[in-house]
Amino acid sequence: MKAARLHAFDAALELDEVPAPEITGPFDVIVRVGGAGFCRTDLHIMQGWFNNIIPVELPAVLGHENAGWVEAVGPQVANLAVGDAVVLHPRMSCGMCRACRMGRDMHCAEFIFSGATSPGGFAEYLKTSARAVVKLPPGVEPKDVAAHADAGVTAYHAAKKAAAVLYPDAKAVVIGAGGVGHIGIQCLRALSPAEIIVVDRSPEALELARECGAEHTVVADGSQAEAVRELTDGGGAQVVLDFVGEGTVADGVGMLGAGGSYFVVGYGDTLSVPTMQMVLTETSFVGNLVGSYVDLVELVALVAKGKVTSHNHTYPLGAVNEVLNDLKEGRLQGRGILVPEGAAA
Amino acid sequence: MKAARLHAFDAALELDEVPAPEITGPFDVIVRVGGAGFCRTDLHIMQGWFNNIIPVELPAVLGHENAGWVEAVGPQVANLAVGDAVVLHPRMSCGMCRACRMGRDMHCAEFIFSGATSPGGFAEYLKTSARAVVKLPPGVEPKDVAAHADAGVTAYHAAKKAAAVLYPDAKAVVIGAGGVGHIGIQCLRALSPAEIIVVDRSPEALELARECGAEHTVVADGSQAEAVRELTDGGGAQVVLDFVGEGTVADGVGMLGAGGSYFVVGYGDTLSVPTMQMVLTETSFVGNLVGSYVDLVELVALVAKGKVTSHNHTYPLGAVNEVLNDLKEGRLQGRGILVPEGAAA
Amino acid sequence: MKAARLHAFDAALELDEVPAPEITGPFDVIVRVGGAGFCRTDLHIMQGWFNNIIPVELPAVLGHENAGWVEAVGPQVANLAVGDAVVLHPRMSCGMCRACRMGRDMHCAEFIFSGATSPGGFAEYLKTSARAVVKLPPGVEPKDVAAHADAGVTAYHAAKKAAAVLYPDAKAVVIGAGGVGHIGIQCLRALSPAEIIVVDRSPEALELARECGAEHTVVADGSQAEAVRELTDGGGAQVVLDFVGEGTVADGVGMLGAGGSYFVVGYGDTLSVPTMQMVLTETSFVGNLVGSYVDLVELVALVAKGKVTSHNHTYPLGAVNEVLNDLKEGRLQGRGILVPEGAAA
Amino acid sequence: MKAARLHAFDAALELDEVPAPEITGPFDVIVRVGGAGFCRTDLHIMQGWFNNIIPVELPAVLGHENAGWVEAVGPQVANLAVGDAVVLHPRMSCGMCRACRMGRDMHCAEFIFSGATSPGGFAEYLKTSARAVVKLPPGVEPKDVAAHADAGVTAYHAAKKAAAVLYPDAKAVVIGAGGVGHIGIQCLRALSPAEIIVVDRSPEALELARECGAEHTVVADGSQAEAVRELTDGGGAQVVLDFVGEGTVADGVGMLGAGGSYFVVGYGDTLSVPTMQMVLTETSFVGNLVGSYVDLVELVALVAKGKVTSHNHTYPLGAVNEVLNDLKEGRLQGRGILVPEGAAA
Repeated sequence: MKAARLHAFDAALELDEVPAPEITGPFDVIVRVGGAGFCRTDLHIMQGWFNNIIPVELPAVLGHENAGWVEAVGPQVANLAVGDAVVLHPRMSCGMCRACRMGRDMHCAEFIFSGATSPGGFAEYLKTSARAVVKLPPGVEPKDVAAHADAGVTAYHAAKKAAAVLYPDAKAVVIGAGGVGHIGIQCLRALSPAEIIVVDRSPEALELARECGAEHTVVADGSQAEAVRELTDGGGAQVVLDFVGEGTVADGVGMLGAGGSYFVVGYGDTLSVPTMQMVLTETSFVGNLVGSYVDLVELVALVAKGKVTSHNHTYPLGAVNEVLNDLKEGRLQGRGILVPEGAAA
Repeated sequence: MKAARLHAFDAALELDEVPAPEITGPFDVIVRVGGAGFCRTDLHIMQGWFNNIIPVELPAVLGHENAGWVEAVGPQVANLAVGDAVVLHPRMSCGMCRACRMGRDMHCAEFIFSGATSPGGFAEYLKTSARAVVKLPPGVEPKDVAAHADAGVTAYHAAKKAAAVLYPDAKAVVIGAGGVGHIGIQCLRALSPAEIIVVDRSPEALELARECGAEHTVVADGSQAEAVRELTDGGGAQVVLDFVGEGTVADGVGMLGAGGSYFVVGYGDTLSVPTMQMVLTETSFVGNLVGSYVDLVELVALVAKGKVTSHNHTYPLGAVNEVLNDLKEGRLQGRGILVPEGAAA
Repeated sequence: MKAARLHAFDAALELDEVPAPEITGPFDVIVRVGGAGFCRTDLHIMQGWFNNIIPVELPAVLGHENAGWVEAVGPQVANLAVGDAVVLHPRMSCGMCRACRMGRDMHCAEFIFSGATSPGGFAEYLKTSARAVVKLPPGVEPKDVAAHADAGVTAYHAAKKAAAVLYPDAKAVVIGAGGVGHIGIQCLRALSPAEIIVVDRSPEALELARECGAEHTVVADGSQAEAVRELTDGGGAQVVLDFVGEGTVADGVGMLGAGGSYFVVGYGDTLSVPTMQMVLTETSFVGNLVGSYVDLVELVALVAKGKVTSHNHTYPLGAVNEVLNDLKEGRLQGRGILVPEGAAA
Repeated sequence: MKAARLHAFDAALELDEVPAPEITGPFDVIVRVGGAGFCRTDLHIMQGWFNNIIPVELPAVLGHENAGWVEAVGPQVANLAVGDAVVLHPRMSCGMCRACRMGRDMHCAEFIFSGATSPGGFAEYLKTSARAVVKLPPGVEPKDVAAHADAGVTAYHAAKKAAAVLYPDAKAVVIGAGGVGHIGIQCLRALSPAEIIVVDRSPEALELARECGAEHTVVADGSQAEAVRELTDGGGAQVVLDFVGEGTVADGVGMLGAGGSYFVVGYGDTLSVPTMQMVLTETSFVGNLVGSYVDLVELVALVAKGKVTSHNHTYPLGAVNEVLNDLKEGRLQGRGILVPEGAAA
C-alpha cells in the first residue's frame, strides 16, 4: 500500500510503497483510511519536539486523526463488522489499568499512540485496536469526522468539563476560534446555555465564532482583558477556555472572576499565578488532555445531530507535503484532511 | 469594655477602654467573647500588608477567629437566644447575592470582615450578624473552637474539596502539619479513607501528623519529592494539599500524578507550571479560600464527635502583645487564644 | 385595593376592596402586581385539598405565581429599588436554616407560601420578602414570566436534575407537554443535547412539543411504552421526566433503561415498583419540588435569551372566576394570567 | 478436579469429579480456588427463582464469590502472573459496551455471571476473564475476602453512593446488620463521618453494628420508625440504606427526611410511595446493583487497611451441603466460605 513516511526529522514526508498491515492480535482491527487529519502535532513530531515524551522510530507513518472503514478484524472482535464506517481514537488503551476501568482511558498507563508509537493514518490502511474504534452513525462520512479524532475530542472534553461549572446566567470566555477552538465553541454551545464571549486576533475567526454560537466577540488587539471585564460587568467570567495557551495566559487569568475556572487546552506558555491571588479569588487552573473514548462517542453524536461541524480541506494522500507546507505557512483555513486516492465506502 | 487596638501599622496593640457594641440593626448579634484566635493574618494586617485588599481604619480592634456566648440579639433574630454558645464565621455575608444564594457565602459580594472592616474579637464584646453565627452543640467550649472560625474552616473546606476526588486506594500528600495543616489532616482523615502522606521540615510536626491520622510522614530535607514518588510507586499522588504555599510549590507540583489536583491553601509563592505539562498530565491547580458557613457547621459537628481537635494555648486578653511576640518569634506551638479575664458561660 | 378572595372552600372567588399591604418588617417588599398565574394548585387550595399540608385561613387572597414592579421596600432592602420589574419566588425563605444556607431554599424549614399562608397575587398589590424577589433583565415583562414563578421554576428544576445525568447520545422521555411540560421540554433542550422523546395524548400538545425542541413525539394511545422501547433500540431511556404523574407512572417505569432515572413532577398516582426490579436494573425514582431561588434566576436568564417562552392568556383581575371556569372545564390552552386593570410599568 | 454441582432444581449439590477448566481464549484466567462464599443467591438459583433472569444450564457449578491464586493465564494477559492472590468480580464484562467504557461494568450489556452462566467457584479451579480479576495486596488472604466478591462489593457500592450525599452533621439509617449490612456499615463508616443509626430485629446484630461503627442502634420491635424520628429530631434522616428490602420498606420510607435518599439493596418487597409524597418531600428512591470492578478494588483497599472485615465460617468443599443446610436453617452467623481441601498459597 501507499504510506507517507518520515525518514528523518526536519525532512519532508516520502510517499513509499510498504506492506499493508495484517491482523496479528485478537483485538486488532484493520481500517481502510477514508480521511486522516494533518495536525499541528504532526509538525511537532516531524521537528522531533515530542521525542522525549513519545519516542518515534523512523521511518514512521504519521497521522493520528483517522477515520475510514473496517477492512478486517481479529478473532475476538465482536462489536465491529467489515465495512463499518468508523473514526479512531488516537490512543489504543489497555482496558485493564485503573484509568481504563474508570472510563478515563486517555490516561491509560500503557497506551499506544497511532501515528507516533504505531504506524498512523497517512496511508491507505492502518492497524488499530478494537478499543479505539467508534462506529459512525448513518450519514456521517469518515473524512468529515477524521479531525474529531484528536482536535475535536480534545475540544469536546474541555468544553464538557467547563459546562459542568456553568449555568444559564454565567459567562464563558473562549480564547482562540481556530482549528480546535471553533469546535470547542460549538461543543460548549451544545452543552451549555451560558453566555459565550470569544477572543481572537482575527476578525474572520470571530465571524466564524458567531456562526458557531458565540454571543459576543472581542478582537485581541491589546484591550481584550478590559473588554471582557466590561462584558462581565466588572466581575470577570466563571470560565475561561484557552485553546491557544501561548501568549494568552497572563491576559486570560485577568478575565477570570472569583470562584472561576481556567481551562488550558493549548500549550506553549508557562502559567504563572501568585498563590495569594489563587487563594483570595479561589480560582482553579485545569489542564486538559485529549478526551476519553466515550467523549469521542458523544462528540460523534453531536456531529450526527448537526450540532458540530468542522471546516476541512481535503487533499489526496499524494499531496501530503502540500498540506504540510500550507499548514507551516499559514495558508490553511480549517483542517487539512488527507484522503487516499479512490477512498470511498 | 476592654479592647486591644491597633493605633498604627507596625506598632504593638494597646489595651483600651472603649464603649461596648450595641444592637443597631435587626439582624445584629452581640457576642460576649469566650476566645479569640491570634492568626498570622493578624500579623499581616498589623504590618499593613492587606491594606490594599481589605482596608483597615485605625484604631482597629483585630481578631477574626471568635467564639463566645450570645449577649443580645436584634429584633429579627429568631434562631438564637441569649446565652447560646457560638462560634463566628469571620465573614458577615449579605444573604442576597448569587454567591450567598448558592451556599458559597464566603464569596459574598458585600461581605464585612470581623477584625478588619468591622471591630473584631480582641475585646470583651463583639458585634456580628446572625448569618455569621454557628451554635455550638452541648459540650463544645467557645475557647476550644475559636481557631476553627478561620484556620479550621479553611482547612476543612480544602480537605472537603480534596476528599471529593479521592478514593480508598488513592494517595494524598499534605504539605505542612502546622497550625492549619494539622487540622487539615484530621479533616481529611474524617472525610476520606485515602492514604495520607505528610511532608514537613519539623519532626515534631510529623509526630503530630501521625496522631492526626497520617499513614506516612516525610521529612522535608531536600529529598521529599523523591520520597513521595517512592511512596506512590513512582506515579505521584492524586492530591497534594499545600498548607504552606511558600517555598513548597515547585516541589509539590513534582509530587502530583497524572490527572491529579493540587490544592493551594497557604500563600506566598508564585505557582509556575508550563501549560504543556498541565495538558500532558491533565492536572489541576485549585485555590482555596476560607470555607462557607455550612462548612463551619460541618467542622463543628466533627469537633463535637471528637474527630477534630486543635492545639491551643490560652492567654488573657491583657497579654495580647505577648501572644504577638510568641507568634512572631516562633515560640508558639499551636494557636494562641485570647480569653478575656473572667470569661465563662 | 382590589383583591380576589376565597371566603369558603368550594366557592367562587369574590372581588373585594381590601387595605393595600404595608411595609412592617425590614426586608418587606411591596410589589404592584403586573401578572398573576392561575395554577391548578389554586383549584386544589379552593377545594380544601392542601389544607392539612399548608393550612389556609379564610378569607384568603390566592395567587402564588406573581410578577410586577417594586412599589416600596423595607429599610434593610439594599438590592432592590422602587420601579424594578420583578418576578417572585412563591416561597419566602428564612435565610438561616441549613437548607437556605446550602442554596436549597425551597426546603426552608420556616417558609411562608404566598397565596396560601400569606396573601397572594390575585390583587393589585402584594407583600413579599426581599429573599423571594428576582429582578427581571431589560425587555422581560412581568406578565410574561408570572407563570415561571411556580410552573416554570418547577419544570426548570426537574430538567436541570435530569440534564445532570444526560449526555449527547442519551435519550430522555418527557411525559406530558401541557402547562408545565412544555416549559420542561424547552428547559431540557436548553440544558442538554440528549435526544428528547415526548409522550402525550393530545396531537396538539405533541405539535407544541416539536416546536419546543423534541426530536420525537409519541401519541399516548396505549402503545406508547412499546413505541418508546423501539425509539430507544429496545433498551429504554436514561431519563423519564413525568410531568403528569397520574395514570402515567406504571407505563413510564417500563420506558426506563438500566441505570436510568425517573423524575416525578406531576402527582396523583402511587409509584409502585418491586425492589427486585429496582435492584436488578439499578434505577432511581426522584421526587421534584419547586426549584430554588437560584433556579428561578437561571430560568429568567433563559427567558431573556429567548430559549424559554410560555403560552399565556391574560385576563383582567375582575375576570378571575372566568379563568377559574376555563381552567376547570379544560378551555384554557396555556396558562391564564390575571392582570390588574391598568397595570403597566 | 472436584466440583459441587447442581443436577436438578430443589436438590442438594453433588460432589463430582469433572475436568479442570483450560485456557481457550486470549484473556482467560484459571484460578485455583482459595475460598468461595455461599450466598443466599445460590439458594435462590438452586430453587430456580432466577431462571427467567439468568438462565442456568444443569448440571451447574455454583459459586459467584470467589478468591484464590492465578494458576494459568491466556496469551494476552499482561497484568497478572501465575501465583498472584486474587479476588474475582462475579461478572465477566466485555470491555467494549458503553457501560464498560464509562466504568460501570456491572451494567455490561454482555456480561457472563460466574456460578450461573459460567461454572463457578464451588470447585478446585475456576475459569474467569482477566477483566474480572482483582489482585490482592500483600497480607490479604483469598478466603478472607471471597465474600467481598459479591456481598461486600454490593454493600460498598451502595455505601459509596450514600456517602456522596452525606456530610458530618447528617444522619444515615442502615436497616439490617446481617451478612451484607454489617459490611455496609463498615464501608459507610470508612467513607463518611455522618451519624449512623442501625435498625435490626436482633440484639446480637445490633451489638455487631456498634463494633462496625454505628453511633446508635434501634431494635426493630415495631417502634423503630418512631425511635428514628426521635434520633433525628423529628426531621428524619438524609439517607436510609435498606439491606433487607423485605418487610422494611414502608417503615423505612417513614424514616426519611425532606430531600433525603432511600437506597434499596435488599429485595423482596414492592416499594410503594404516593407521587404527591415524593414531590412534597423531594425524596429519591435508588436501586443498587453489585458494584463495579473499581468498587471491588476500592473495597479491597479498605480491607487491606483493616477498615472492613467480614465474619466468615470456613467449611471444606466436601461439606457444601452442610453450609447449605446451615444457611437454610439460620444456623450460620456470618458468611459460609467453602475452601477446597489443601488450598493454600
